Amino acid sequence: MCEANAYIEEEGREVLVMEGVFVVKNETGTSGSRVILENIFGEQRVLEADISRVSLMEHKIIFRDPAS
Amino acid sequence: MCEANAYIEEEGREVLVMEGVFVVKNETGTSGSRVILENIFGEQRVLEADISRVSLMEHKIIFRDPAS
Repeated sequence: MCEANAYIEEEGREVLVMEGVFVVKNETGTSGSRVILENIFGEQRVLEADISRVSLMEHKIIFRDPAS
Repeated sequence: MCEANAYIEEEGREVLVMEGVFVVKNETGTSGSRVILENIFGEQRVLEADISRVSLMEHKIIFRDPAS
């Protein structure tokens, strides 16, 4: 299987938020930006963020604060 | 390396738009939804779409029409 680490962009840096992510669902709607992450350890995490970039070569999914 | 196929949701179906994708950049801004896809064959494609779901288990990145 092929998983990635999730990062959020903060002040030009990439801060790790979750390892081993294999599903990201974008639930963004009229109520704002919202993504749900699931990882290989059975954990789930919700971020108030937008997907900024997916790089499968680097095994990275990078999110950003919708306000920035 | 770990790549995925890109699909767009159309009338409940997933329509293949690009194979072997390894980078997706979300360029969405004030001018609307826009993503840039790059694949292992050196091809680039621009979609007027939002990222709907990333499933690395299924090797799929699914996009949706921002209007739908």
